[in-house]
Amino acid sequence: MNEFDLIRLLTAGLPSNDTTILGAGDDCAVLDLGLSDRWLLFKTDAVVEGIHYTSDAKPEEVGHKALARCLSDVAAMAGKPVAALVTLGLPQEYDPKWALAVYAGMSELARRYRVAIVGGETTTVPERTLLSVALLGTVDKNKCLKRSGALAGDAIFVTGELGGSIQGKHLDFEPRMEQAQWLATHFSIHAMIDVSDGLAGDLRHITNSSGVGAELLASAIPVSDAARKGGKPPMQAALEDGEDFELLFTVPAREAVALLDAWKLEFPGLKLSCIGKITKNPGFILHEGNRTRDILEHGYTHFA
Amino acid sequence: MNEFDLIRLLTAGLPSNDTTILGAGDDCAVLDLGLSDRWLLFKTDAVVEGIHYTSDAKPEEVGHKALARCLSDVAAMAGKPVAALVTLGLPQEYDPKWALAVYAGMSELARRYRVAIVGGETTTVPERTLLSVALLGTVDKNKCLKRSGALAGDAIFVTGELGGSIQGKHLDFEPRMEQAQWLATHFSIHAMIDVSDGLAGDLRHITNSSGVGAELLASAIPVSDAARKGGKPPMQAALEDGEDFELLFTVPAREAVALLDAWKLEFPGLKLSCIGKITKNPGFILHEGNRTRDILEHGYTHFA
Repeated sequence: MNEFDLIRLLTAGLPSNDTTILGAGDDCAVLDLGLSDRWLLFKTDAVVEGIHYTSDAKPEEVGHKALARCLSDVAAMAGKPVAALVTLGLPQEYDPKWALAVYAGMSELARRYRVAIVGGETTTVPERTLLSVALLGTVDKNKCLKRSGALAGDAIFVTGELGGSIQGKHLDFEPRMEQAQWLATHFSIHAMIDVSDGLAGDLRHITNSSGVGAELLASAIPVSDAARKGGKPPMQAALEDGEDFELLFTVPAREAVALLDAWKLEFPGLKLSCIGKITKNPGFILHEGNRTRDILEHGYTHFA
Repeated sequence: MNEFDLIRLLTAGLPSNDTTILGAGDDCAVLDLGLSDRWLLFKTDAVVEGIHYTSDAKPEEVGHKALARCLSDVAAMAGKPVAALVTLGLPQEYDPKWALAVYAGMSELARRYRVAIVGGETTTVPERTLLSVALLGTVDKNKCLKRSGALAGDAIFVTGELGGSIQGKHLDFEPRMEQAQWLATHFSIHAMIDVSDGLAGDLRHITNSSGVGAELLASAIPVSDAARKGGKPPMQAALEDGEDFELLFTVPAREAVALLDAWKLEFPGLKLSCIGKITKNPGFILHEGNRTRDILEHGYTHFA
């Protein structure tokens, strides 16, 4: 059973209450606790040694990554982060300096985004270190961006460049907090997600949640240099590799040109690419030269 | 370096912001997000196979325990739980039925306390399962009970019976939510904590936070049957064993008798014991028959 099937089973029929605006299934949970203008965003994310980082990764980067992943999810809903709790799993024999350096990396990032680190715990995990972050944020009720709002005809955009994150970016990426805020303020973003499972998988999350399909144009997909240096075809890396932590979103096609123009002025150092469109037909296809390929459930695995 | 020393190092100088009412160092973090009458409570807690439960523990009980630990911390601040996120660490090859049963145990408890489970994630931990819960709650600003409010002269109370939790109670205990709410509503509770590290260790958390000392009367300490059946002296088990998840709190001595009387009417099935008093002198001692023992930093280790 794969992760997605298990999650479907586990999240069916979970307990809810009248604070729940959005439960499992988006970048963050959304809660209404009675603030007049804002909802709460609630997110947890864990990184595990040997899975999400190697034992020789710099501890500062491990700390940075763990918090940055959660920040990226808050960004993807156009929220602002507020406070974090940290769970640090350590073997019985550990190096206190390693733990302190993890916290130093995390704290530096937290200060940059005015996130309070308000506690957490250390726990024993004998075989490997792990780090889990729980993050609380808020979002304006009228700006909250879900995965489920994409409409047929929307243009699909992605920030930055995709693929090959494992070569370094997965440890030191910057969450697209400022960009997401700006997008939610100035354009009619219909759906947004951060690219953590890979472009194909995350666009699939948007189309599944929204009950639509998508067509992508291969030549428009921003393939990173790192994707070109990896072992697989670069286009496949850009579509399938995880942990890009870029923003993937849809806007009405009529806003696409204005968005590209305004973006260049606002964020001249960061690429923004229009990579395709949302379709009424629920299929998910890639136009690549003269060929058209179906993109299957979890990636770019079906070559015509 | 022990856990407490490490935590002291890790939590020194953590980033804060203007929402932080209480950061690391109490049962929950306390945040002011702008609600007129309430603060937010924020807590995470992890249980790890082989550390907090054995591989043959019933999965429903593992799920129960993971959430109940967090609920116990919210109770200890006189708060009400709202919503939880769940991180489930599983080996590559796992039994989906086990994971579903963990969720079933957790969901049953969540429904009883009207807690929404609003998502989380599964992650790979090859060697052992683990379960981390992040819990959000609220507390009336004028009822929030910290560890740091104990005053010289206060009577010290504990609910239930202590010691030997490892024989079963650590998996199926009920968080003292109702009792904590009742206490905060009807009496002038000065400080409260849930007994997770053991009576001696947790009372030490109260006295250290409050800048006071304590004297306990051994004959008043409610030693559980389970503590009498373990391998160590029962009084030592009652003082040192962890995971009792009872409430430990202090009230002005003048309210002690009225509290005991009212408690018996309100909670006839649950013992409440007055076990000693808070002292101005920062020492921590136990009167046991004719002898007086010093209780050291992390337990009952100094025999006269």
